[in-house]
Amino acid sequence: MGQHYEEFIRRVKELADLGHAQGMLSWDQETYMPPRGAGPRARSLGTLAGIYHERLTDPALVALVEKLRAGDLQGDAEVNLRYVERDQRRALKIPRELVVELSQTQSLAHEVWVEARKKSDFPLFRPWLEKLLGLQQEVAHRVGFEGSIYNAFLDQFEPYARIETVAPLLEQLRLRLVPLVKGIAAAGLRPAVGILDREFPVDRQEAFGRRVLADLGFDLERGRLDVSVHPFCSSTSPEDVRLTTRYSARQLTSALFGIIHEAGHGLYEQGLPADVEGTPVGGSVSLGIHESQSRLWENMIGRSRDFWEHYLPVLREYFPDQLKGVEVDAFYAAVNQVAPSLIRVEADEVTYNLHILLRFELEQALVEERVSVAELPELWDEKMVSYLGIRPPDAAKGVLQDTHWSIGLIGYFPTYSLGNLYAAQFFAQAQKEMPGLMAGVAQGDLLCLKGWLNRQVHTKGRRLNAGELVQAVTGEGLQVEYFAEYLEEKYGELYHLR
Amino acid sequence: MGQHYEEFIRRVKELADLGHAQGMLSWDQETYMPPRGAGPRARSLGTLAGIYHERLTDPALVALVEKLRAGDLQGDAEVNLRYVERDQRRALKIPRELVVELSQTQSLAHEVWVEARKKSDFPLFRPWLEKLLGLQQEVAHRVGFEGSIYNAFLDQFEPYARIETVAPLLEQLRLRLVPLVKGIAAAGLRPAVGILDREFPVDRQEAFGRRVLADLGFDLERGRLDVSVHPFCSSTSPEDVRLTTRYSARQLTSALFGIIHEAGHGLYEQGLPADVEGTPVGGSVSLGIHESQSRLWENMIGRSRDFWEHYLPVLREYFPDQLKGVEVDAFYAAVNQVAPSLIRVEADEVTYNLHILLRFELEQALVEERVSVAELPELWDEKMVSYLGIRPPDAAKGVLQDTHWSIGLIGYFPTYSLGNLYAAQFFAQAQKEMPGLMAGVAQGDLLCLKGWLNRQVHTKGRRLNAGELVQAVTGEGLQVEYFAEYLEEKYGELYHLR
Repeated sequence: MGQHYEEFIRRVKELADLGHAQGMLSWDQETYMPPRGAGPRARSLGTLAGIYHERLTDPALVALVEKLRAGDLQGDAEVNLRYVERDQRRALKIPRELVVELSQTQSLAHEVWVEARKKSDFPLFRPWLEKLLGLQQEVAHRVGFEGSIYNAFLDQFEPYARIETVAPLLEQLRLRLVPLVKGIAAAGLRPAVGILDREFPVDRQEAFGRRVLADLGFDLERGRLDVSVHPFCSSTSPEDVRLTTRYSARQLTSALFGIIHEAGHGLYEQGLPADVEGTPVGGSVSLGIHESQSRLWENMIGRSRDFWEHYLPVLREYFPDQLKGVEVDAFYAAVNQVAPSLIRVEADEVTYNLHILLRFELEQALVEERVSVAELPELWDEKMVSYLGIRPPDAAKGVLQDTHWSIGLIGYFPTYSLGNLYAAQFFAQAQKEMPGLMAGVAQGDLLCLKGWLNRQVHTKGRRLNAGELVQAVTGEGLQVEYFAEYLEEKYGELYHLR
Repeated sequence: MGQHYEEFIRRVKELADLGHAQGMLSWDQETYMPPRGAGPRARSLGTLAGIYHERLTDPALVALVEKLRAGDLQGDAEVNLRYVERDQRRALKIPRELVVELSQTQSLAHEVWVEARKKSDFPLFRPWLEKLLGLQQEVAHRVGFEGSIYNAFLDQFEPYARIETVAPLLEQLRLRLVPLVKGIAAAGLRPAVGILDREFPVDRQEAFGRRVLADLGFDLERGRLDVSVHPFCSSTSPEDVRLTTRYSARQLTSALFGIIHEAGHGLYEQGLPADVEGTPVGGSVSLGIHESQSRLWENMIGRSRDFWEHYLPVLREYFPDQLKGVEVDAFYAAVNQVAPSLIRVEADEVTYNLHILLRFELEQALVEERVSVAELPELWDEKMVSYLGIRPPDAAKGVLQDTHWSIGLIGYFPTYSLGNLYAAQFFAQAQKEMPGLMAGVAQGDLLCLKGWLNRQVHTKGRRLNAGELVQAVTGEGLQVEYFAEYLEEKYGELYHLR
């Protein structure tokens, strides 16, 4: 058995090495690749994906998995076998022609979506979304699922999560959020957000961002910070984790919160167990858990009053003229403005989850064939009115705004809200175990929380699934209560709701 | 046959896609990779190299090559088949264990070399060079060769070149260079090189370098310029060609000549026929031809009086104080100072080739077993005295200075001098066909020569080998005369030798 397992791990690490190459090529595509390099890059990535699929489904690896399954693996070995088997089984069930058709349809659909969004023309995109949905449904049927077909979609991004658990959580969340949003609107307070909209030279913004990055304990010997159109975190190893952000000279905080958000992802990746690198057990748990790390740092720390207690005076050293006379209370209020808005990626912490809920409900209804693609724009707008009280003026600011569906990412959206729930529950637990945590933050100590997350979450790799991890760290399953309370308390105070 | 050829090309392009990934990962390693990323990067590159070897020697591709060989391919198809067959035959003859042992020995030998050079301790490096040499000789015997075993080494870098032709050319060159160097030394003129050694802010140097890069017609939509420890050009496609240079605030021209040199390589890569990209016929001819492009631009253009006639006033806009009162004659003399020196990479245009000759003669004697590794330091120093009249004070400034042998690059050095010969012969032909060429350069027109090189060299891809290309472009085989005359005329005038 030992010899089989060794050969199994050799092959698994080879797959990880291929993944490393794919990751690097994708990172470069978003950062430094010259404009005309896109064609050859797509070809190379296509070939690597083909080789990856070929080696994952190699009969020799299939046979190894079968042999090992017959044995009684324990601990890390059991985790490694289980996750490889998951991926392999999925890959084996999808014929090569379907993989190719799906990949080509995604590329073409994405191009049409770009055009359709530009023209705000949903009917242009509609046949492509229909085709893509049909292909994805075929994949789901081939891969198999229990209960709702949506489970096959969700499971790709949040392993072992099920709609039967997720839907009630998000519905509970909705019931807490809608009155909160209404209360805030009724309060009629408008923070002075104009203080964030002055001339803030980009090089100073970057210098301050790097200062915060260092304070967060992000290791630049094992990582980088660059610029891209859409901020992201890309990791090929705990030894090489790369963040990006984007700067706007007229907006102070978007680049900074981008850095903190991506650093949250990056700290997770740098904190993964390096001794089992290249095997499933050395990887991250799920998109939801990943998002919990970025949102905890960005929102619960980066948008906290304690954080700015320490950092506003530091920031003022970088922008003495622009921030003259700006006090912590005003700054804190400005970075936490709540207002219903049309665009998800620009939404605040409170309304954000209503944007997610809307998408989650619609995509679930789509794949379960309770609604048709043709009905989407109408349903979208109705839900916007119902949840946020505003109606998109056109499809570009409505149903066409996100890229996800155009590249086949159905079942992805709920992981954003799950991330918020996980984050709040971890945050509450951290504060319970370290009552002085936020007092430390107010003095610039961010490493205390980083150390706690390293110990409680990061170093565990993928040894527990998301549900097990939350249970192990907090002593109970995932609850809506922590996030809802966090929001109600923070915004209740900010908007004088109590 | 058509169907076989189609499948052959599909597999060849897949190999090119793997090469694209290897190229990108190597580029990143030298430019943006964080320090600790080296370990996982080496593993990923190792896996890609293994997969490349596996697919090149895949029995199905071997069978395809055999079938196509039995046919009567013509034109591009013949070229593609011939070059793939060359690579495949070589790969098939080297057993996997030897590939692995060689690769590991190279890594280890390189590390020891770094240490040995630091300590100037040749005996430390000696056993590693002996082992590496032994392995390389074994490879050569397995691959096979005609005449001298050195042909097996040379052929890897300069396909179809043979020692029987190259050695007499370089010996002729030596006979012309030694008296020229002596004459220059005897002339006793010392250009005022101090004008290049002032404070030249790096951002201004870069701005000027980018100005020249644009004038050269290097397309930044299809390429980049970055910084690395050792300047290089890396290309994954004519659509994505990347240059690097390094800046020193105390030295004006080294970064600039680095940019021009690498741009010479880059213009070649951008000028290759894009319609046959990913197949051998779409590639460059040889290292010698590649080096001809970089040296033609760096030395024959970039260090010409005509070039500075136009560019010194431009450069003065970037450095008005530093270059106040510096005239073209003085500047031209300073960038062309000739003086015997110990280090190859710092040598001037004239003495450079004597550094190459020394290495060429020694490595040839080594692989032919006429001298032993133990004798190398002594022989090195003797040849330095004989060719350049100076004796290295230690091994670090002598036999240990170059990295090439430590990573198994034996047979590589002569391509640098061949590059100079090709460059001068192309340059002479270009001037013959366009008598006003240098008058144009004096007015800042660099595109005329670029267009000529595009037509005469770049767009031909690998359809001709190096010897055939020189014959096709200049109407005769490779001659020493053009380069020797170029040097004698330029430096005769600069050092008043006539």
